[in-house]
Amino acid sequence: MNPTLEIFSQGEEIVTGQTVDTNAAWLSQQAINLGFTVTRHTAVGDKLDDLVALLREIAGRADCCICTGGLGPTLDDLTTEAVAQAFALPLVFDATAFAQIQQFFSHRNRPMPESNRKQAMLPQGALRLDNEWGTAPGFAVQQGRCWLVFLPGVPSEMRPIFLDKILPELPQRFSLYPSQLITIKTFGIGESDIQQRMNGCDIPASVQLGFRASLNDVQTKLLFPHAYPEPARTALVADVARLLDDYVYALEGQHEESTDLPGVVNQLMDQGKHTLAIIETASQGLLASLCIGVDWLLESRYEQSLERLTQKMSIVMDAENLSDSDVAKQLALELQKHNQSEFALVQVYTGGRDALADKNQAVTVYSVLLADKTFHDSAHTVAGSIKRKQNQAALLALDLLRRFLQFGQYSKLST
Amino acid sequence: MNPTLEIFSQGEEIVTGQTVDTNAAWLSQQAINLGFTVTRHTAVGDKLDDLVALLREIAGRADCCICTGGLGPTLDDLTTEAVAQAFALPLVFDATAFAQIQQFFSHRNRPMPESNRKQAMLPQGALRLDNEWGTAPGFAVQQGRCWLVFLPGVPSEMRPIFLDKILPELPQRFSLYPSQLITIKTFGIGESDIQQRMNGCDIPASVQLGFRASLNDVQTKLLFPHAYPEPARTALVADVARLLDDYVYALEGQHEESTDLPGVVNQLMDQGKHTLAIIETASQGLLASLCIGVDWLLESRYEQSLERLTQKMSIVMDAENLSDSDVAKQLALELQKHNQSEFALVQVYTGGRDALADKNQAVTVYSVLLADKTFHDSAHTVAGSIKRKQNQAALLALDLLRRFLQFGQYSKLST
Repeated sequence: MNPTLEIFSQGEEIVTGQTVDTNAAWLSQQAINLGFTVTRHTAVGDKLDDLVALLREIAGRADCCICTGGLGPTLDDLTTEAVAQAFALPLVFDATAFAQIQQFFSHRNRPMPESNRKQAMLPQGALRLDNEWGTAPGFAVQQGRCWLVFLPGVPSEMRPIFLDKILPELPQRFSLYPSQLITIKTFGIGESDIQQRMNGCDIPASVQLGFRASLNDVQTKLLFPHAYPEPARTALVADVARLLDDYVYALEGQHEESTDLPGVVNQLMDQGKHTLAIIETASQGLLASLCIGVDWLLESRYEQSLERLTQKMSIVMDAENLSDSDVAKQLALELQKHNQSEFALVQVYTGGRDALADKNQAVTVYSVLLADKTFHDSAHTVAGSIKRKQNQAALLALDLLRRFLQFGQYSKLST
Repeated sequence: MNPTLEIFSQGEEIVTGQTVDTNAAWLSQQAINLGFTVTRHTAVGDKLDDLVALLREIAGRADCCICTGGLGPTLDDLTTEAVAQAFALPLVFDATAFAQIQQFFSHRNRPMPESNRKQAMLPQGALRLDNEWGTAPGFAVQQGRCWLVFLPGVPSEMRPIFLDKILPELPQRFSLYPSQLITIKTFGIGESDIQQRMNGCDIPASVQLGFRASLNDVQTKLLFPHAYPEPARTALVADVARLLDDYVYALEGQHEESTDLPGVVNQLMDQGKHTLAIIETASQGLLASLCIGVDWLLESRYEQSLERLTQKMSIVMDAENLSDSDVAKQLALELQKHNQSEFALVQVYTGGRDALADKNQAVTVYSVLLADKTFHDSAHTVAGSIKRKQNQAALLALDLLRRFLQFGQYSKLST
């Protein structure tokens, strides 16, 4: 039997629906991957009695409980007090926690508000979980059979504390027989197409198959039981990856760091010591922003009007009635020259700005990559809200670059 | 006292974290707006005993319960059976429901699988909730003090059934006195600083005060009870807004559409028929991408090296050892000229690209806005991960623009 784990979310913003509880889903996935059985999610607001009663209830029922929220500096942050009451643990001033909170503010050149002092009070005997990403330290207490972990509710603090401090601790405290999750990440192919391709492959009944589609990719998930032999696993994963062909941009096992399409492109660009300059239209800066911090992106430009851009770049078009793709190629040549970059990537789209903004109209996004004096290009129809189109346009341009770097060409027909 | 309402979500996909439970948040918002107090969210998987126990527990505790999920045709859809067991209500074949399910399939020219017959079995005495959007009818039962409503888990079926069948029913069954929620959105001031300022203002005990901090803003929420006199409400909101001063970028009542900082800037830019060109550094395209679809953004540029940019723009700096802010001002002048835009906004930062990438180092982001031949500027220390710095840099530049548009100047000291 796997040990059981419950998720407990605290905060009025959750229970009133102002915030969707993404923490509960994220933590559950982590726990399942480790080998827990997740039995229940509970969320309540800022009511001390409810919190106390629930903490006692869960501690009597589950082997582990991960709680998020209610650790902030304000009066309505009641979790620590609730733990103290529920388990008769007096609150004790933690000098180390206090020093860290003070440091957080001094690093930002801000005075520490008096209210933050409260965050240094921890239940007696609790394990402190240092928060390097915000002011509220987490903590953990053992109550009878149940190990209860308390983390801040802000995902950008909660996730790193969990990964850094809790993930390594759990296998020490529980007998865990984790399944092995393999995630095959694809871009440019839909969930039903993937399912049809998968018919060409026998998945054993003991392997759980799942799909997760988002705006950024479709993930095919294979969950192998703990005792599954490794050679058979490797062979099955290779079979599935072959069926999904060059749509696959990343293949991840359980313990590798998760990567996304920009991450994969970044690795390939760094490896080849390439450089790039970009002109964006439909994605309006999003493409550049996804490449934050990389060394290889020299310049990126968004221009509302292509006409104005060609004028500014002093490009004289040879003929009238040039197609958008011809203009894009001219721009790529100029862009490469101006920046003395190895590659130049230019994105244009047909249909105009009104169609881009209209959720009922589709536009065709055309991306061209200039590399080794050769043009590589792709054209795709994108539909939906303007934000969806923006996102797709950015990822399609990145995927053109990824395919070129991996295969030396854009190997698929445009859709 | 408002009647209490709980949300109960059923399904392995929720409890294992494969699906984020957006239904719970959506239903809670609906319930709060109607005048319920939402006290708890619970989610469990496909275990009959858990379901039965929880249904009894909730029925003894809440005045209303909205349950989603578990109404499908497959073996692991156990909600109806759990209701039958929990409340000793035998399942009865509902001919109308069955006819609707048959019709659903015949309209799609598909044979009805035998398993779907199960969906026409409803607990004795239940109110049937016709599902015009899928196969699973919902239903509702009264158990003691509690009215329990059961809806399919697919949001595209759940939402219209709720809006069509439940929303009109609730005011008939409950004495509802909806509260009024006012949200005051601020940027550039922290939650604890807000709390300290709020000490200058008496919030009556009947008004519920809450805060929500995210990367993009801090929201101060005032929840007024139903009978609260409007003049007093208006006066209190004005008092709080005054204390928060020009950090306030939006003030929202319960029924206005929600807006964010880019949305507010967009309104102000459109109203004034202004135009803008941007140079981004630390935000690397994110600032432009947040302004997707606007008419007033003519050009945006990211350049990795400021030196290269000044060369490319043929700017000759008059003196050596110019400060970053001097360079930024020169760039703004050139940018405005090149684009013939009314405004030019330039962002630079000190500390270099290594410091930007290092989560343990802070950088100072300097934004300068050129408008009416006058420079308006702001400088802020930003810390944390590179993505956090990127986001803050983009919003700080937008906020400089917002303050100029609202007040004609950047009225606060830099921090």
